[in-house]
Amino acid sequence: MKKVLSGMRPTGRLHLGHYLGVIKNWLELQEKYDCKFFIADWHALTNKYKDTSELKENIRQMIIDWLSCGINPEKATLFIQSGVKEHAELALLFSMITPKSWLELNPSYKDLKFNLYYQYLRDFLAGKQIKIIQTPPSESFDEALKKATGKQKNKIFEEYLREAFHRAFYNQKGIDFKGLKEMLIKFGIQKKIVEEVVRNLEEGDVGKDIDTLGFLAYPVLQAADILIYKADAVPVGEDQLPHIELTREIARRFNNLYKEIFPEPEAMLTEASKLPGIDGRKMSKSYNNAIYLSDSKEEVDKKVLQMKTDPQRVRKTDPGNPEVCIVFDYHRIFTDKETVEDIDKKCRKAEIGCVECKKILSKNLNRFLDPIRERRKEIEKDLPKYEKMFFEGTEKARKEASETMREVRKAMKLWEF
Amino acid sequence: MKKVLSGMRPTGRLHLGHYLGVIKNWLELQEKYDCKFFIADWHALTNKYKDTSELKENIRQMIIDWLSCGINPEKATLFIQSGVKEHAELALLFSMITPKSWLELNPSYKDLKFNLYYQYLRDFLAGKQIKIIQTPPSESFDEALKKATGKQKNKIFEEYLREAFHRAFYNQKGIDFKGLKEMLIKFGIQKKIVEEVVRNLEEGDVGKDIDTLGFLAYPVLQAADILIYKADAVPVGEDQLPHIELTREIARRFNNLYKEIFPEPEAMLTEASKLPGIDGRKMSKSYNNAIYLSDSKEEVDKKVLQMKTDPQRVRKTDPGNPEVCIVFDYHRIFTDKETVEDIDKKCRKAEIGCVECKKILSKNLNRFLDPIRERRKEIEKDLPKYEKMFFEGTEKARKEASETMREVRKAMKLWEF
Repeated sequence: MKKVLSGMRPTGRLHLGHYLGVIKNWLELQEKYDCKFFIADWHALTNKYKDTSELKENIRQMIIDWLSCGINPEKATLFIQSGVKEHAELALLFSMITPKSWLELNPSYKDLKFNLYYQYLRDFLAGKQIKIIQTPPSESFDEALKKATGKQKNKIFEEYLREAFHRAFYNQKGIDFKGLKEMLIKFGIQKKIVEEVVRNLEEGDVGKDIDTLGFLAYPVLQAADILIYKADAVPVGEDQLPHIELTREIARRFNNLYKEIFPEPEAMLTEASKLPGIDGRKMSKSYNNAIYLSDSKEEVDKKVLQMKTDPQRVRKTDPGNPEVCIVFDYHRIFTDKETVEDIDKKCRKAEIGCVECKKILSKNLNRFLDPIRERRKEIEKDLPKYEKMFFEGTEKARKEASETMREVRKAMKLWEF
Repeated sequence: MKKVLSGMRPTGRLHLGHYLGVIKNWLELQEKYDCKFFIADWHALTNKYKDTSELKENIRQMIIDWLSCGINPEKATLFIQSGVKEHAELALLFSMITPKSWLELNPSYKDLKFNLYYQYLRDFLAGKQIKIIQTPPSESFDEALKKATGKQKNKIFEEYLREAFHRAFYNQKGIDFKGLKEMLIKFGIQKKIVEEVVRNLEEGDVGKDIDTLGFLAYPVLQAADILIYKADAVPVGEDQLPHIELTREIARRFNNLYKEIFPEPEAMLTEASKLPGIDGRKMSKSYNNAIYLSDSKEEVDKKVLQMKTDPQRVRKTDPGNPEVCIVFDYHRIFTDKETVEDIDKKCRKAEIGCVECKKILSKNLNRFLDPIRERRKEIEKDLPKYEKMFFEGTEKARKEASETMREVRKAMKLWEF
């Protein structure tokens, strides 16, 4: 039977985006294949090692979330990465045969670095009372930059900020800090603040703190995660494709150097969830716009009421356009087809108001979440029993991993204990 | 009691240089401190991962060499690194908190890279029938370069070759391949060959093969080796000082981020052995000039007879100068003081011939090696019994290491199994 492996970083409670993008897929996979799903707690350290106070609770929530969605320890092996030290051993051995350039030239390494640096820039400005305005600007960046004269002090459109950093970052000769500084000042941010943040980015602790060995090396750990179980397939999003390619390259290199041990795993491309957050942006914990699997009925009702609808529809008597309505995006997924068509028609003719439409969604969302909530309640009543399932899964995974390690050591002609 | 840790890469049988530079020191340390000595087999992979066929035999020889010299498993814990997976786990965790720049700016990283690249250059040329001449040139590099016109085809002085590569390598803007090419051609090496080797160095497989993740990361593994046992002191040669400093920095960073767990180990500076090889160069396996602890009486006699003496002393009747005689360097260490003084006097007056002088040395060297040989014979008769001592030591080390890992996981607030 095909062996499938997939992991998730324990970064917090799961939301509907996770459910639609990952869990739903896993529920199907566990019926068909020999699946292993793991909580990638070591990976969570690659970009969040300074404050680990929430890590344990995040793992606990992940256990509850997975099980209450129906991920089933009798159908798939569920485990926690850090309980299988063999991953670290194999990653160490892989590090010996992996050219540094493979990692540095990996496009996702640069992208991840971009995101982390950008996040720092954004958070720093927000902390200095610079308003980061969310509504997308109507002008192109270049037009806006031409007109910008520093007039709109202490405000900046997120899109322009990102674009400015993007231009500075994806520069052939390394990051163009000087250019970044000039752009930000032109966009109206105080010179003093710009200089401080750019200096921090350039020479301060920021780069050092982000650009760690672990951050560079994490695709090698990922390769070890996958290959130690000789997985045939790995469900991934498009952004993870370069990593799977790297895993395949490492497998090939090992097989060539020592012995044919590892299959080259294929990527099972899974579509990312297109469900937006309640404000229309990508659903994300950091945007505070997510509906969690663990939200109560009241929380869901409240969030649905906050959802953005067609901005052109001011009064109930105005006809609406479902194409630009977040509530409608949700209906498409959580409401039966007939009702969706009915709402579509009525909205366009102003025959249904937004509040009524939202109430229908609330009901459907809660109907979807209710069985998950039920199971959650069961699990929370006797958490140790369910945690134990992960301990057992970890033990099972460890046995398989140590089998592979025996083979690896033999192939590499290492000392056998 | 002070905890001392030290390791050795299993790269082959030990020679007198190893004995004087390391083992002799360890023999004293094991009497005074709580010592751990380990065979660093994972480290051996950082620059020799392609051909591991000799690794196991090298470990075996190291076990025999250590024990036959008197390194004592009842006095020190002796173990094999790869048997303690916790080193890999701690190295992984340290990789998360170690800025990549700490490693890249580490002077020994650059030096190691220089040596590896240089070795490639040298071996490549030797393989193309370029004679690498050993006798040091009398002119400075700059003078020679000025005069060089490519006349001495297919020969190059090692010193000039090294200097040429040194100048190209330690260049502010990365390696100056163009400059290297020009220098080598000027020194008389065929253009075609120069172009091939420089192209290989520049873009071929060489850099990729040498400059691996493991090679960059190995000081982090070393930090884990040391800190996992909370060693107070590490006997090292001067060239290893930057690594110990890095270990201290990693300990500080960990202690600051999470909890005060690790002591900052101090370096116990040990002098490198000054005993030259039989040809006068540094004693080294790769120069084929070493006297091994496992050499037979006949081999030692033969090697002593090959030793370089004062080149000015052509006939037995010429007075000699012990200051420039390799045999005399050995006498200073292996012959009693009185005899040394006697030889010194007689040599200067041509009252003792080189052959006679060498015979005295042979006798003394063999007298020194005899008890080691005796023990070696004992050990080889029942190798499994002695290997078992290392298994037991490994188990003992593992217990201590896993104690530390428990503390580490707790301090980092990781999941506890």
